[in-house]
Amino acid sequence: MLSYICSICHRIYDSITLVWRCECGGLLDLRSFASHFSIKEAITRPATIWRYIDALPFWGNDKGWKSVSMGEGFTPIVPLDGTGSSIFVKLDYLMPTLSFKDRGAAVLVAKAKEIGVTKLVADSSGNAGTSIAAYANRAGIECHIYVPESTSPKKIQQIVRHGATVHTVPGSRENTAKAAQRAVNEDDVFYASHVYNPYFYQGTKTYAFEVFEQMKEEIPDVVVVPVGNGTLLLGVYYGFKELLDLGLINRMPRILAIQAEGCAPLALAFDNGLATARPVINEGTAAEGIAIANPPRSSQILAAVRETDGVIVTAPESLIDSTRDYLAKKGFYVEPTTAATFAGFFKYVESCIQGRALEKDRLFKVDPFQPGSDRKVVIPLCGAGIKAD
Amino acid sequence: MLSYICSICHRIYDSITLVWRCECGGLLDLRSFASHFSIKEAITRPATIWRYIDALPFWGNDKGWKSVSMGEGFTPIVPLDGTGSSIFVKLDYLMPTLSFKDRGAAVLVAKAKEIGVTKLVADSSGNAGTSIAAYANRAGIECHIYVPESTSPKKIQQIVRHGATVHTVPGSRENTAKAAQRAVNEDDVFYASHVYNPYFYQGTKTYAFEVFEQMKEEIPDVVVVPVGNGTLLLGVYYGFKELLDLGLINRMPRILAIQAEGCAPLALAFDNGLATARPVINEGTAAEGIAIANPPRSSQILAAVRETDGVIVTAPESLIDSTRDYLAKKGFYVEPTTAATFAGFFKYVESCIQGRALEKDRLFKVDPFQPGSDRKVVIPLCGAGIKAD
Ligand SMILES: [Zn+2]
Ligand SMILES: [Zn+2]
Repeated sequence: MLSYICSICHRIYDSITLVWRCECGGLLDLRSFASHFSIKEAITRPATIWRYIDALPFWGNDKGWKSVSMGEGFTPIVPLDGTGSSIFVKLDYLMPTLSFKDRGAAVLVAKAKEIGVTKLVADSSGNAGTSIAAYANRAGIECHIYVPESTSPKKIQQIVRHGATVHTVPGSRENTAKAAQRAVNEDDVFYASHVYNPYFYQGTKTYAFEVFEQMKEEIPDVVVVPVGNGTLLLGVYYGFKELLDLGLINRMPRILAIQAEGCAPLALAFDNGLATARPVINEGTAAEGIAIANPPRSSQILAAVRETDGVIVTAPESLIDSTRDYLAKKGFYVEPTTAATFAGFFKYVESCIQGRALEKDRLFKVDPFQPGSDRKVVIPLCGAGIKAD
Repeated sequence: MLSYICSICHRIYDSITLVWRCECGGLLDLRSFASHFSIKEAITRPATIWRYIDALPFWGNDKGWKSVSMGEGFTPIVPLDGTGSSIFVKLDYLMPTLSFKDRGAAVLVAKAKEIGVTKLVADSSGNAGTSIAAYANRAGIECHIYVPESTSPKKIQQIVRHGATVHTVPGSRENTAKAAQRAVNEDDVFYASHVYNPYFYQGTKTYAFEVFEQMKEEIPDVVVVPVGNGTLLLGVYYGFKELLDLGLINRMPRILAIQAEGCAPLALAFDNGLATARPVINEGTAAEGIAIANPPRSSQILAAVRETDGVIVTAPESLIDSTRDYLAKKGFYVEPTTAATFAGFFKYVESCIQGRALEKDRLFKVDPFQPGSDRKVVIPLCGAGIKAD
């Protein structure tokens, strides 16, 4: 039986509960369950995240997810360009709602359906809100999305078209989360949070499985990941960890996490050797998808990056737009958040090559942009650029 | 050696030529070349259109396409919903530039690169222009896109970001095509037209191969396809035809082609038993992607549909927007052109069930929306909805 465990006091909760946070205030994680990842079986199945069903928390139940799935996952990995460098991009915006969030939303909503949820609440002004709305409605679950008042009419319109009820909340992004949480607590409904709900990460972990399979079981040296709330980063970490535990890989790839200069609590905490990030003021950034001033799972994120001998760095705000053009000229039209990921990567590579990065933090001795570099890098393209226009 | 053949006078042209139309005015087709489609080999390759390389005009040449590809193709096929009907959608907007046009553009541009093209011209205000721009720039080919003056700044901006030069042309869509063709003829450059260039259809034919493979070699009874210039429809026809010629299927699926009520020269010609469509006046439609008043390949389209015992019908304009909502509520956020495809399909199914459709044109005796219907239907979702907002 699946169950939740509090990340602080280790209290156990039945995973069918509507509780979304421990009484002690701790975050809930999914207790590890036996994973039966079989690459041999996976490759015989359709090219979606569900080919890894044996490693997802659905065993023995075919009904839940099949009618919810829109074929999400198994997004292509291709070389960044034709120069022969060892930098690969994973087109994770080739998802039903055009962002990597579909990995998490598909699994979370399928799980909600399985346990009989009829109504759910989520808060997001961005890709997660759209994704949850689309999957919830497909699953026949009543859906309420809380968004900040400042959300663009275009984004609200799409969520409404997906069949969700949108609630606009004055004030900050944090206010929106609080309003959603109040509604969850008062009405006893399911909180389909991409931050708090542990099932979301069960979906994003498939990113790691796909990289493993698509790179022909030769995992990259470095996986670059944008980080705000850590929905992709923690999934990537969990996924590779499972592969390691199963003996399918013999080392973790190093996680190079990118934050936006204007909102970088995790990079700051990393630099200062802190176990938990301190809240910052969001000074504004084009990389909206990772502008999280006070990420609830900061200690898990910091621990994960450190365990892989990884690094957290910032992307220079001034280079985000030109980096977007750089990627578009290679064929990839992406959101500013993805452009920021690349901008941060470039800056970091430069500081390694020029010897400015601390020795222990220097993931690259030679320039990975040069042909024949021995460091394989995979970078996700997380959201379609047209969403941001 | 690959060569073109004139569809009217049957004159042969070397396919490396820059000629894009026969001296007699006829359209050029690719002369049939031995196709070596091997499903057994295909399934061992990455999930892109290039797994069918043996059936594409690139044999023995690995260099051309590998650096051009962005992992396009092998888009998911899933049930329309959980009702158990036999209607399936193919999410063909899960492509690098978010429309099915990438199938054609990837093949066309890879071919251009292979034969040493350094500069190309195309005309399109829509998905084709974006797609050609993205692939051309990725391939390092100078790209000029001609668009009508009325094209939205947002669309122009994306094409420019992809690195193309945009030329705006006053007047009608036809004027734009003429301006592009003038530039092609004057400068002796490659015309990367999704209408005239036969290689484009070599890309779109992979749609049929994927349906065949994904439906476990059990082809659908009916393939619904939106039709304007016929870039998808002719590809679908060629693809299934090749499967038939190779003995991999024993009948063609019937093509149910959908036009927009406000611009339906092909539906009119079909109804009147004409071999070639007469130009119409575009009275306006939300389904911009298929609003072609005078499709150059009309006789090929009409012949293809008739050969499969198919039908061409129109979509009621008044239902396009509500059908877009209908699809969004099932999780799929699509362009109006795709909504029109469904609206036309609904109307046609109704006329079949109610006995209004001519007996010979009645593809459905029982309602395919009912569980257990014996008629498998596949409908493409051609473009992402966010593009149209
Ligand atoms: Zn606790
Ligand atoms: Zn001729």
